Amino acid sequence: MEIPVVRNVLEANDRIAGRLRADFARRGTLVLNLISSPGSGKTSLLERTLNDLAGEFRMAVIEGDLQTDNDARRVAASGAQAVQINTEGGCHLNSSMVSEALQALDCDGLDILFIENVGNLVCPTEFDCGEDAKIALLSVTEGDDKPQKYPYLFHKAKAMILNKIDLLPYVDFDVKKARAHACALNADLAVMEVSCRNHEGLEDWYEWLRAAAKAKKEAAHE
Amino acid sequence: MEIPVVRNVLEANDRIAGRLRADFARRGTLVLNLISSPGSGKTSLLERTLNDLAGEFRMAVIEGDLQTDNDARRVAASGAQAVQINTEGGCHLNSSMVSEALQALDCDGLDILFIENVGNLVCPTEFDCGEDAKIALLSVTEGDDKPQKYPYLFHKAKAMILNKIDLLPYVDFDVKKARAHACALNADLAVMEVSCRNHEGLEDWYEWLRAAAKAKKEAAHE
Repeated sequence: MEIPVVRNVLEANDRIAGRLRADFARRGTLVLNLISSPGSGKTSLLERTLNDLAGEFRMAVIEGDLQTDNDARRVAASGAQAVQINTEGGCHLNSSMVSEALQALDCDGLDILFIENVGNLVCPTEFDCGEDAKIALLSVTEGDDKPQKYPYLFHKAKAMILNKIDLLPYVDFDVKKARAHACALNADLAVMEVSCRNHEGLEDWYEWLRAAAKAKKEAAHE
Repeated sequence: MEIPVVRNVLEANDRIAGRLRADFARRGTLVLNLISSPGSGKTSLLERTLNDLAGEFRMAVIEGDLQTDNDARRVAASGAQAVQINTEGGCHLNSSMVSEALQALDCDGLDILFIENVGNLVCPTEFDCGEDAKIALLSVTEGDDKPQKYPYLFHKAKAMILNKIDLLPYVDFDVKKARAHACALNADLAVMEVSCRNHEGLEDWYEWLRAAAKAKKEAAHE
């Protein structure tokens, strides 16, 4: 009884996501869906990125949380446009929530739209939000076994950001093992090691963003 | 269309959970449902507890994960009975999974049954597994805002274990703030600060366990 209903919900979600994707393809806006456990550093990564690349790109953020607008306020401090979605208990964003949130954004000339999903390694993976790529964040405090234990996200993501590498001396985290597990699920996964706290490695992420934004823009002009 | 189905699923879940709860009440077995983000240290806490209290209690563990039996193997190394549930993508355990897993356990004379839920701060909170208490784990690397941002778990839990306090010098985590947010949601919440890495604070958790197991046993004999 459960399965057919879940399928209908996913099909409806995919239809709306398809419309969002077509719209952003026309505009040449790169759309990234950031997914991780709670507290892996999605908001911190966005704060850094919005500040550091403010001169290069026009960026906006859709924040998903069960409650509070803490994260939208944090990212809006950079000057970027930000909208908060409160799911009121919902464990993931979906394409209709994103579609609704877009009403509150000025999408003209937008280079990059970041969607920060609800902190959850499982459910957000299943709901397409019209993005070009899912970005998986994993903090080194969570353990190197996470790609193996939560394979769906790492299988689908285009990039994995290993965050909080400044804490590596204080935790038992084998970077090689985490990379190997993730890349076994997904040979094309780009892996970047960063610390949002001390800025280490962020330039690799910015290079990845620049290349992806450029490719999206070029495809729109073809 | 979605809501009635979810309600049916939850009602069916609650019926099975009620039967499990009645059975464990008769046996005097304390049942605890451990819920946290991925990587907060649920398995590490169980490893410590099973080893340190092996002489005091007969304990067993039901492990929930999307994939792998890593965690069941880790806890079974203590000599305790362990069963692994693989949800194959499911983001939480439910009472019928627990009921099924119990077939593989010898529950005679069991003092404490630990259910380690799938790492997720949202969905596991909604599905009663027949437990006496939900135990929320929060690691200090996840940020002190998590009780505020994921209020449902902290509202329902009987205890919150702040784990990885050995990392406090290296992260921006305000213990007072996390405690205040959690206790604002739930005035009766027991809060324990521990490090599974260096054993700090574990005795507080063990005292809590002893009291809860004793109360359960006494209620069964009344």
